[in-house]
Amino acid sequence: MENNIHQIMQEIGNQAKKAARILSESSAEQKNQALLAAAQALRTQTAHIIAQNALDLEAGKNKGLSAALLDRLALDEKRIESMAAGLESIASFPDPVGKELTQWTRPNGLQISRISVPLGVIGVIYESRPNVTADAGGLCLKSGNAAILRGGSESFHSSNAIIACLHQGLRSANLPETAIQLVPTIDRAAVGEMLNMVGLIDVIVPRGGKSLTERVANDSRIPTILHLDGNCHTYIHADADVDMAVNIVQNAKLRRTGICGATESLLIDESIIEKILPLIAEKLIAQNCEIRGDKTACAIDSRIVPASEEDWGCEYLDKILSVKTVSGVEEAIEHINKYGSHHTDAIITANQAAAARFLQAVDSAIVIHNSSTQFADGGEFGMGAEIGISTGRLHARGPVGAEQLTTYKYVVKGDGQLRAG
Amino acid sequence: MENNIHQIMQEIGNQAKKAARILSESSAEQKNQALLAAAQALRTQTAHIIAQNALDLEAGKNKGLSAALLDRLALDEKRIESMAAGLESIASFPDPVGKELTQWTRPNGLQISRISVPLGVIGVIYESRPNVTADAGGLCLKSGNAAILRGGSESFHSSNAIIACLHQGLRSANLPETAIQLVPTIDRAAVGEMLNMVGLIDVIVPRGGKSLTERVANDSRIPTILHLDGNCHTYIHADADVDMAVNIVQNAKLRRTGICGATESLLIDESIIEKILPLIAEKLIAQNCEIRGDKTACAIDSRIVPASEEDWGCEYLDKILSVKTVSGVEEAIEHINKYGSHHTDAIITANQAAAARFLQAVDSAIVIHNSSTQFADGGEFGMGAEIGISTGRLHARGPVGAEQLTTYKYVVKGDGQLRAG
Repeated sequence: MENNIHQIMQEIGNQAKKAARILSESSAEQKNQALLAAAQALRTQTAHIIAQNALDLEAGKNKGLSAALLDRLALDEKRIESMAAGLESIASFPDPVGKELTQWTRPNGLQISRISVPLGVIGVIYESRPNVTADAGGLCLKSGNAAILRGGSESFHSSNAIIACLHQGLRSANLPETAIQLVPTIDRAAVGEMLNMVGLIDVIVPRGGKSLTERVANDSRIPTILHLDGNCHTYIHADADVDMAVNIVQNAKLRRTGICGATESLLIDESIIEKILPLIAEKLIAQNCEIRGDKTACAIDSRIVPASEEDWGCEYLDKILSVKTVSGVEEAIEHINKYGSHHTDAIITANQAAAARFLQAVDSAIVIHNSSTQFADGGEFGMGAEIGISTGRLHARGPVGAEQLTTYKYVVKGDGQLRAG
Repeated sequence: MENNIHQIMQEIGNQAKKAARILSESSAEQKNQALLAAAQALRTQTAHIIAQNALDLEAGKNKGLSAALLDRLALDEKRIESMAAGLESIASFPDPVGKELTQWTRPNGLQISRISVPLGVIGVIYESRPNVTADAGGLCLKSGNAAILRGGSESFHSSNAIIACLHQGLRSANLPETAIQLVPTIDRAAVGEMLNMVGLIDVIVPRGGKSLTERVANDSRIPTILHLDGNCHTYIHADADVDMAVNIVQNAKLRRTGICGATESLLIDESIIEKILPLIAEKLIAQNCEIRGDKTACAIDSRIVPASEEDWGCEYLDKILSVKTVSGVEEAIEHINKYGSHHTDAIITANQAAAARFLQAVDSAIVIHNSSTQFADGGEFGMGAEIGISTGRLHARGPVGAEQLTTYKYVVKGDGQLRAG
């Protein structure tokens, strides 16, 4: 069986490589036509997709999946419409490929330009959410990359129904179906194969929980674009507007607790903590949010429980907030760079110098002044759909949209120049 | 001993991480001052460096190093002056850090900008050339990155003498010496340690031969910027200017045969091969270049020896050229994408449509029209010094200079915006 999977995956890789060549030469119109037709197919096939999804849900219940996992897995008309609208949104953005990024002429007359080109073949490994099939497939297509999608076994029937719509879109635009392939087996060996397909897959993007991402980070022989933790901080500086700070913290923590941009830890200057923490605690506790604080915080409100060292490094993804008192912006920076995950961190202050210092020195993909960390999202950035938020440093940092799924080549034009020396 | 090396390397990594924070906040002036002072120190210390280099050369001779390796290792006044001038050139370029790469405002008033920042800590693993110590150290410094340099054991004394000059430069600019550290042991275990220093080293750059690069590609748990083969092609299209083609091929193959941008394989349209190959063969064979050709090529000149399948994928780095006949631009593209190394490939033609097709479809970091592949070089591109030419697709492609040793962060400025929904 394992040998069989090796052969299946090699064949998929070879097909993807061929498709990538074709995609890299296809026009923006052709790719957009495929996206729009796929969106239409999702709408037409809604009943079928829901029926296939029901098979996954039934199997999931029998397997004893948690209510949260079953909810992620579940598709209804609204969620399918949202996938279709997502593909249309991807189509509406400018083509990220073939752009002249920069251009200059050398003294010897050589004209050098840097032109955006697709990365090649992108392998996406994800878990239960079936909508990733449409989002990731659409983003790869828009950026001219062939996609090999390996969805979670729980969503196998749903993903197959969705991929059929993407294939319908590709066919209608005269593009090969192999441009977006779904791994046709739920055998976990397929993941190991993907991580070793050097020369056939150019980039691996894991989308899912920590154990998946860490496995990919450790085992992949192929370059990766990773999203690790989102241990995000909001820091309230002494010169913060109090109302603004309270509102931002409430939004940053509680708007949605399960997204990576949710604030997990609140830092407050000691000079204003007695004034501001009671207001925040009141609001958050009323919304059933647990607060874990350092000594100073605990002394302010008896409902605040003591935080342990572990809390500072924790991505709760839940209605829990840790609170730490700091002496000022330097200690806040120090704390965030030590315990944070270099994802998204915010400062609330009316003091421009403190803000500038924070934005410069906090080493995170996204740093925010006077707003909510929940804005850490490709859509909110105006970049359209995203395949994740990179916490790595190479290639792409922050939201990874179609533009970030490209690389470049240098095009040099001469008229017979020879190199001297 | 191995445990000891583990401790040494961890300590170096921790020091580098601290230095990286300081460097990321240092001004362009401060970094440039360090570079200029280091250049001056190299000049002042020339006699000492040459004396230390003599120790390496003596040891190398006793070890039986080849004449070519000994030449790479050897330093004289001219080569030291060239290192010093290289550092001054790096200083003269614009600061790559802190640049606003792009900026936009969202409908809700959030101002988003993408700002260039250093990568962090860069580990450079290289072989016998001691000048890499100065070049790599200088480029990392310019781009605000801390460097951990692991030079070849053959150049240990020379590299130590050079690093002392870099440290003198750093001190004079009030920057920590730990910004550029040379691994203080020739034990090979240090390389293995570096490839596993996740969280302490952000990027690994190998500079050296195939076996080093392949080892790093296979073993590194840290993202890499790799330079693999430079199997470069020159393709002479039917509509090429004959004189231009002959001159370019001669330059591309023979100006220097040992650099990665040297042409290794020549493709010629069948309609002009009888006319043009005799002219090329005449020039190249007169300069002792061996030509290995396909059947058509061999039939044209009896001094051309038959090429094997292996020749098409070979980076000779020597006075050898393979020659293949193709039916036209499509076959040339096909051949290059199959056998090439995605480094640098050129087309010679007066036909703009053929040129455009080639430049679009050849999947290489650098594609050239009507000039020599030997221009594949950061200096020739006007980018200044380079740490290598990336044949990977993520992050940087082609020449990797100071600008390519940066990443970016998003800076978001608001006035209390909350995320809805």
